[in-house]
Amino acid sequence: MPSLNRQVRVVTRPTGIPQAEHFKIVQEPGPAVGEGQILVHNHFVSVDPAMRGWLADVANYAVNSKGHASGAIQIGGVMRAMAVGEIIGSRHPHYRPGDFVTGWFGWQDYCATDPRAVVQRVPPTELPLSLWLGVLGLNGVTAYLGLSILGNLQAGQTVIVSTAAGSVGATVGQLAKLQGCRTVGIAGGPVKTRLCVEEFGYDAAIDYKADNFAAALAEAVPEGANLYFDNTAGIISDALRNHMAIGGRIIICGTASVANWDPTPIGPRSERYILTRRLTVCGFIAFDHADQWGEAVENLLPLVRQGKLRYREEILDGIEQAPDAVAGLYRGENLGKRVIRL
Amino acid sequence: MPSLNRQVRVVTRPTGIPQAEHFKIVQEPGPAVGEGQILVHNHFVSVDPAMRGWLADVANYAVNSKGHASGAIQIGGVMRAMAVGEIIGSRHPHYRPGDFVTGWFGWQDYCATDPRAVVQRVPPTELPLSLWLGVLGLNGVTAYLGLSILGNLQAGQTVIVSTAAGSVGATVGQLAKLQGCRTVGIAGGPVKTRLCVEEFGYDAAIDYKADNFAAALAEAVPEGANLYFDNTAGIISDALRNHMAIGGRIIICGTASVANWDPTPIGPRSERYILTRRLTVCGFIAFDHADQWGEAVENLLPLVRQGKLRYREEILDGIEQAPDAVAGLYRGENLGKRVIRL
Repeated sequence: MPSLNRQVRVVTRPTGIPQAEHFKIVQEPGPAVGEGQILVHNHFVSVDPAMRGWLADVANYAVNSKGHASGAIQIGGVMRAMAVGEIIGSRHPHYRPGDFVTGWFGWQDYCATDPRAVVQRVPPTELPLSLWLGVLGLNGVTAYLGLSILGNLQAGQTVIVSTAAGSVGATVGQLAKLQGCRTVGIAGGPVKTRLCVEEFGYDAAIDYKADNFAAALAEAVPEGANLYFDNTAGIISDALRNHMAIGGRIIICGTASVANWDPTPIGPRSERYILTRRLTVCGFIAFDHADQWGEAVENLLPLVRQGKLRYREEILDGIEQAPDAVAGLYRGENLGKRVIRL
Repeated sequence: MPSLNRQVRVVTRPTGIPQAEHFKIVQEPGPAVGEGQILVHNHFVSVDPAMRGWLADVANYAVNSKGHASGAIQIGGVMRAMAVGEIIGSRHPHYRPGDFVTGWFGWQDYCATDPRAVVQRVPPTELPLSLWLGVLGLNGVTAYLGLSILGNLQAGQTVIVSTAAGSVGATVGQLAKLQGCRTVGIAGGPVKTRLCVEEFGYDAAIDYKADNFAAALAEAVPEGANLYFDNTAGIISDALRNHMAIGGRIIICGTASVANWDPTPIGPRSERYILTRRLTVCGFIAFDHADQWGEAVENLLPLVRQGKLRYREEILDGIEQAPDAVAGLYRGENLGKRVIRL
C-alpha cells in the first residue's frame, strides 16, 4: 500500500470555466484495496474541456449510463478525470498487478476502485502510455465513433471541423481525409491553422480570429459542407451553419467556445436553417457507445503505428500543474492533447 | 379552351407574413394547351403556412429537387399553390381528360402545364376531393413520411406535437397514437386544445398561450418526450427543448411561430441541450421523398375511410378569399386544413 496519495480536490464550484482557485492539492494516506477492488497507480492524468461541464451544478454529460460516475462532482471530492496507470494491487479475479488500464481514476496518484471505473485495458505496445488518454483514448475514440456512427461520409464529400488542431478535431480531420473527403479545419490563430495543413493534412484551414473569417469560409466551401464536426458551438457554428450543403449533418461533440450556459446564452435561431437545408444535428458522446470502444481502438492503433494518424501531445509535469490546466485549455494555450505526468 | 381564367398574382414581395395587399386578382384569357401539356381545371386550391417562405426573396424550400417550381416566386406571377382539379385537355399520352390530379397548378381557375407539375393522380373514391390537398395530400403525407422516415417510434414512447390541432399536427398525433405512443399536443387557446383531446385523441393537450404553460408542460411529460414534431419553432420549441428525453428526436417541419427570418431572429442557444441530451434534430420536407408519396397515401387512405384518422377542413368559397387567406392562418383563425373552393 502506498504511504501517501496526492489528490487535487474541488474546493468551490466554478460558475464558468474552472480556474486554479477552485482546486486545492492535499496529501492523504494511500488507499487500501477493498474486497473486489483494484489499486491503480496513475502515470498520466487527463485534462479535458469537458471538465467544465462535469463541475457545473446542472445536468451534464459526465460519463455513461452504465453505472460509472455521473452527475455534478461533489465539493470536497477528488477531481473527476480519466487516467492511465498500472494496477499495483488487486482483489478482483480479472485484474492482475502489472496490468495497465485507463479509467475514471481522478486527479490523484493512486486510486482504489471497483473495476467498473476501468474504461479499457492497455495492451503492451511500444507506444507512449500517454496516448491512451488521447489519440487511443477518449479523444481518438470520440472522433472515430462520432464519424462511424453519425458521419455517414462518402468519398468526395466536404467535412468542416472546429478546434481542428485539437485532439478530437485533428483525428476527425485525418480520418475523414483517409476516407477520401475534402477537409477544412477551423482553428484560432496562424500557428494552429498552419498545424492543420502541415501536420494534419487538412486541404484548407481557416483562422476564426482573423478579420476575413467569413470570406475565407465562403471561399473554402463553395458548395457547402456535408458534415460539420462541431467542438465549439457559439459564433463559429453560427457562421458555419450558413455554409452547409442540403442534407448536411452537424455532429455536436463539444461547446468549447461558449463560456457559460447558465443562464442559457442567446444566439441566432437555427430552426429555419435546419429545415430549409434539411440538416441533421446530433449530439454525440463517446461514452454512450462503450460497447464499440474496443472496435474503435482496434482501428486507430494500426493507423497510429503506421504514421497515418498523427497526433500532438502537451505533457505537463507534476500534479501541481493540474489546478490551472483546464483554464489553460480555454485560453487556447495548448497545442495538442494536454496530459499531466505524475 | 376556357374563355376566362381568374388568377391571384403577387404584386409586391412581403417582408413577413403575406397580407391581402400583396396580391391582386386578375382575369386573363383561358390558357391554350401546348404540345406535351395538360390543361387542369382547379376545383380546390390550397392555403399553406409555407407560402410565406415561398414568397420570401431568400433561399427557401419550395418544392423538390426533381425539377418542379423552386426559388422565390417572381413578382407579377401567379401565386404558387397546390391544387386539385380535373384534366379537361391533354396533349400528353399519359393523361386523359376526366382524370383528377393534384399538383403545382397555382391560385387560378385553369392551368396549362407540363405534367411534371403533377404531384399525384387522384383515384376515384367516395371521399371529398378537397382531402387530396389535406389529409391525403401534402399535410397527411408530411405527417406520415416525417414519422416513418425520421420518427423511429416505439410503442410506449411519448410524442409532443406543436400546432397539434393543425392539419399536419393532428395527423401526426393520431398516427403516433395508432403506433401505441402517448401523445401530447400543444395548441393555442381552449378551443384548439379541446379539439386535440376530443377529436384527435391526444392523451393531453396544453395551451401555449395560458399562464401555466411551463408548469403544464412539465406535468404532461414528467419523463421527457422521445419525439417532438415541431411545426412552430420559436418560443414553443424553446420550452419543449427542456423536456426532451435523453436520445430524443426533434423533427422540424415548420417554423410558423416566427414571423420573420430576415434578419435571423435570436433565441436561446440549443447546442448544449442537443449535446447533453444526445438529441437528433432534423429538418423534414415531404417533397424530398416524392418516391414515397404513393406509399404514404396507400397507408393513409384506409385509415381515413375507416374513421381511424380524423381530419378537419375549413373550406373558403371563391377565389376572392385567397389574398387574405395566408395571413388568416398566421392569425390562427382557422380550425382545420384551409382550402379554397373555386
